[in-house]
Amino acid sequence: MVNYLNKTIQPGDNPDLTEERATATFNTNDMAAQIYGAEKRARRRREITAKIATMPELHDSKPYPFMTREEKILESARKLTILTEKMSEIIDPTDAAELYHLNNEVLGLEGNPMALHGVMFIPALSAQASDEQQAKWLTRAVKREIIGTYAQTELGHGTNLQNLETTATYDVATQEFVLHTPQITALKWWPGNLGKSSNYAVVVAHMIIKGKNYGPHPFMVQLRDEKTHAPLPGVTVGDIGPKMAYNIVDNGFLGFNQYRIPRTNLLMRHTKVEPDGTYIKPPHAKINYSAMVHVRSYMLTGQAIMLAMSLTIATRYSSVRRQGQIDKNQPEVKVLEYQTQQHRLFPSIARAYAFQFAGAETVKLYERVLREMKDGNVSLMADLHALTSGLKSVVTYQTGEGIEQARMACGGHGYSMASYISEIYGVAIGGCTYEGENMVMLLQLARYLVKSAALIKSGQSSQLGPLVAYLGAKSEATSLIDRVPNSGFTEYVKTFQHIARKQTLKAAEKFFGLMERGEKREIAWNKSSVELNRASRLHTRLFIVEAFVRRVNEVGDLTIKEALTDLLHLHVNYELLDCATYALEDGFLSSTQLDYIRDQVYLYLGKIRPNAVSLCDAWEFSDIELRSVLGRRDGHVYQNLFEWAKSSPLNKTDVLPSVNQYLKPMMEKARQGSKL
Amino acid sequence: MVNYLNKTIQPGDNPDLTEERATATFNTNDMAAQIYGAEKRARRRREITAKIATMPELHDSKPYPFMTREEKILESARKLTILTEKMSEIIDPTDAAELYHLNNEVLGLEGNPMALHGVMFIPALSAQASDEQQAKWLTRAVKREIIGTYAQTELGHGTNLQNLETTATYDVATQEFVLHTPQITALKWWPGNLGKSSNYAVVVAHMIIKGKNYGPHPFMVQLRDEKTHAPLPGVTVGDIGPKMAYNIVDNGFLGFNQYRIPRTNLLMRHTKVEPDGTYIKPPHAKINYSAMVHVRSYMLTGQAIMLAMSLTIATRYSSVRRQGQIDKNQPEVKVLEYQTQQHRLFPSIARAYAFQFAGAETVKLYERVLREMKDGNVSLMADLHALTSGLKSVVTYQTGEGIEQARMACGGHGYSMASYISEIYGVAIGGCTYEGENMVMLLQLARYLVKSAALIKSGQSSQLGPLVAYLGAKSEATSLIDRVPNSGFTEYVKTFQHIARKQTLKAAEKFFGLMERGEKREIAWNKSSVELNRASRLHTRLFIVEAFVRRVNEVGDLTIKEALTDLLHLHVNYELLDCATYALEDGFLSSTQLDYIRDQVYLYLGKIRPNAVSLCDAWEFSDIELRSVLGRRDGHVYQNLFEWAKSSPLNKTDVLPSVNQYLKPMMEKARQGSKL
Repeated sequence: MVNYLNKTIQPGDNPDLTEERATATFNTNDMAAQIYGAEKRARRRREITAKIATMPELHDSKPYPFMTREEKILESARKLTILTEKMSEIIDPTDAAELYHLNNEVLGLEGNPMALHGVMFIPALSAQASDEQQAKWLTRAVKREIIGTYAQTELGHGTNLQNLETTATYDVATQEFVLHTPQITALKWWPGNLGKSSNYAVVVAHMIIKGKNYGPHPFMVQLRDEKTHAPLPGVTVGDIGPKMAYNIVDNGFLGFNQYRIPRTNLLMRHTKVEPDGTYIKPPHAKINYSAMVHVRSYMLTGQAIMLAMSLTIATRYSSVRRQGQIDKNQPEVKVLEYQTQQHRLFPSIARAYAFQFAGAETVKLYERVLREMKDGNVSLMADLHALTSGLKSVVTYQTGEGIEQARMACGGHGYSMASYISEIYGVAIGGCTYEGENMVMLLQLARYLVKSAALIKSGQSSQLGPLVAYLGAKSEATSLIDRVPNSGFTEYVKTFQHIARKQTLKAAEKFFGLMERGEKREIAWNKSSVELNRASRLHTRLFIVEAFVRRVNEVGDLTIKEALTDLLHLHVNYELLDCATYALEDGFLSSTQLDYIRDQVYLYLGKIRPNAVSLCDAWEFSDIELRSVLGRRDGHVYQNLFEWAKSSPLNKTDVLPSVNQYLKPMMEKARQGSKL
Repeated sequence: MVNYLNKTIQPGDNPDLTEERATATFNTNDMAAQIYGAEKRARRRREITAKIATMPELHDSKPYPFMTREEKILESARKLTILTEKMSEIIDPTDAAELYHLNNEVLGLEGNPMALHGVMFIPALSAQASDEQQAKWLTRAVKREIIGTYAQTELGHGTNLQNLETTATYDVATQEFVLHTPQITALKWWPGNLGKSSNYAVVVAHMIIKGKNYGPHPFMVQLRDEKTHAPLPGVTVGDIGPKMAYNIVDNGFLGFNQYRIPRTNLLMRHTKVEPDGTYIKPPHAKINYSAMVHVRSYMLTGQAIMLAMSLTIATRYSSVRRQGQIDKNQPEVKVLEYQTQQHRLFPSIARAYAFQFAGAETVKLYERVLREMKDGNVSLMADLHALTSGLKSVVTYQTGEGIEQARMACGGHGYSMASYISEIYGVAIGGCTYEGENMVMLLQLARYLVKSAALIKSGQSSQLGPLVAYLGAKSEATSLIDRVPNSGFTEYVKTFQHIARKQTLKAAEKFFGLMERGEKREIAWNKSSVELNRASRLHTRLFIVEAFVRRVNEVGDLTIKEALTDLLHLHVNYELLDCATYALEDGFLSSTQLDYIRDQVYLYLGKIRPNAVSLCDAWEFSDIELRSVLGRRDGHVYQNLFEWAKSSPLNKTDVLPSVNQYLKPMMEKARQGSKL
């Protein structure tokens, strides 16, 4: 067999897909190394995938879409307990990237009964429990003797921490805290795995001692009996019901009726309460953004992967799906030949790469900030916190958009759960809401941008943080994108900088102006908020473009660099066209340049065409991980759609109960009536 | 009690909602008459709703989200057979609007086991069966002695009629047609209710007589035994499996293995085949757009209703949901106070009205075309067909966008199935794909626009159809939107006409130019297709704006007119901002005008604020119809979310099987390990 650059090819594949892969101009393993950040990472992913392929006990026993919610939870718990036993045979459990890939392969995207145990419960104990408390609980948690979660959000109060209603009132006489849910809106609501799986939780409640409210504090709380798993007296706990997706997770509600826990269950790493109720403040109360920044940084790569999964499914299917004729004398063409189809998919392929690179850069920035913070330097933290707020918002929104376009690009079959894209969408789009609702996130970034604008206004541009320094620079008179050939992407970056700068200063000016005309700050802010959010989006999109440019500049391998450069060309032109209004209104871009941008988009759609499938293949999703009949590696779609359908639950019986109980009697009655 | 203009108010409602409703400047019943086209229609809707409220046997026995697919189908069949008995007590069964409302209330959006029987099977027999055949089958179908569907689409071939693979080969010896499925891609795939519910189907197959293929023809085919409902020998039939939504419908697959049916099962109203195989052509073969135009016209109002449902849920919830403070000295505010929230919801409220009005106008146009066709005048049909193609595409896309924004505007609770918005989204977004995939639809309209551009190019503007006549006019030098006060919406319409005209002529010029430079027509078309689709969208958006303007101009009642005028102001400014690139690039709009447009958007967000809930209430969706805890009329959301959650399936048992079987043993084993 030919030694193809695309390493996905296997004998017996659908020739329509092999034909696409044969035209790859780069080695897909090498591109995977770019995507996952290192050759070793990409190789380990493949090794893990290969290992899992040999372990049938870790495979879905049937497709998830055929299971009820209860069955999915049972199936997930089954695989989870096997993983608990065998994890160290497959991965290095201390490597977060390997663990992430293992989870995606085996447990999938829809969650699992212990998702929060590792992501929230253990980190909460690590950060907030005292050494003594850690010896008692953290050890048990790590060994999985207990299952825990983190319960903060309440039914009526979302993430507005100061307005939580659950109370923990200290009873000096018994040295206990009394947890209480004063009304329905105070029920803990949404915490993952709280409803059914966890027997412990770190619960956030307002701590009240001798009538004084010390604000929200974390408490370690046992919810269920360790032997029977039954909820303890005074605890009301359950599942909040089915959701758009993530239905393997038992998001829960939790209420307390004067429920007593020992004083020593207050997590005391920072704060302490003595037996007599004396409150000892933490040595230095500081806002700790780092957990949020951490989660949001990793969310970006998670979103990029879900976008790439959907595009892999749609682009492969578009290569085997034939419909309509371009040349009347030729057979039906692959739908990937249509410019409209390319325009639906390829800009999103570019975004998936852009998000992955921007995510990796953000994680690196985060690690740098952590190091600098240890040395007492916190200057970059506010910058990064603002940036990740914007990135989280823009990336989740555009990911959802791209996934839905990928699904629709598959026509009717995209709507079938056999494509699995609708489930990926449901999971991914949750990211617009959790970890900070997107509008709120954009306004957080806007707050930082407005502060920066105020610095500029008062002539202190030199004080600007590194990520917003461009706001203090001056634009050229007009963009030069079509006039400086071989300028790399400099002129594009300048154009994005210009529009982000202009909109930021303009929106800030609106806000300042309203205050100058006598509006209260909060009212002025609210009246400027849509324009401020526009500025936040433009600032974020600039960062994504810059991160993409920086990465491409770093690549050494020429074939990889060339393929990524094509993607980047598509990206900058597509994105700029999407924000063109801002650059046209002040004449920074001319109509000639806009036509140039449009032509560039079409040019690069065509250039990317022969690499399209390979750019998706390079993400190296296995069939086990993709869970999509439509996106199968081998491209044998139709036979397998039929097999999938035949084994679906409704086909277990020829005649449904609905027919026997209702439709048949209805028809028979009508026939009797006709005979009369 | 005060005689409020908003007729939705009842004693005991959440005061936060009553407060919103009390500020209505119009009578909601009168607005409902505008929405549904006549006072009588709106009144009948209310009467039907009231009647259903008294019939518990027609209510959902539990919330749909708590049911498995099988349970939903059973529940739907239960209500369907009761409806079969009692329909004429509730509605006039010959009135399509009443039937539609009854279905939405009782059966809901997720489909039912006989959805296609009424919408496709009976119309197919009516249009294509001979009188004799109608006496035999149509009578039985109407009486519901049999259940049928319409099977055309195939697994590998979508709606490309000429490439269907199923064959019906005439056997002169036995006077039978032999139906056959030559390979897997030829399986009928997707037809609604084909899988499990129907015992008959009109099947489209290539008719082959004495070796000659006469192309696709419709045949009446029995699929299942009338007594046992078992599939007949030679018939392979089943359900295609779970989908993104619409899971009450058993979309099916169907294959034939040399399956014989009598010659007389060819539907012979137009075509005939004599016993000896002689083929008799229909008297005049004409392309019949009317069925497609009919379905697409009605789709618009269906989409408008789903958009309005989602907005009703989100806007009501935004009035009872309090989060954050605008004034630090005041309590938390309703999230509807936030400009970002208003900007998320109100432009979509305007679109829902616009779509409803455009839909109603299209239905009227359709009825006019039908009348004119009887008099032999077919001039408007092509115009209307092209327009409905565009409308179907733009309206379904923007509806999906609006529903998702409504869901996200509800924060986390929007993601819960208790909001029901994700299910509404799943159903609505299917409209982007069925009845003609959106990209294909836009290109259909583009074909018409290009023909029109060719007429203009060759100096024959007078030949333009009435809906595209504006393409032949000349634009003024610049827009006058901010310079002609009290011009109604004339200057806006002119601006939309300008950009639709410019993009149409430009895209057509690209296509003509490519051909002039030697490209084959189909290649040139493909290379211009993204730009052509942009033209189609602008032409369609112009029509929607014009239809909204025309409707507002017709309204007599001043309070209704004023409220609708505010919505229309928001609509024209929001939509124009969204397409501003086209008007900026040639200087038709200036940056000053763009700022004016932005200010107008914010001005009208504020003006609409006191009417927002009432503009949603005016659609008069009952709680039974909305199926949303979050969108309850009375605004008592939190208590009912808790009740809903408590009754959800996972809470039937305290300890899940997943815990007993897997998680408890896992934890116990770990504890044993620690004791060793």
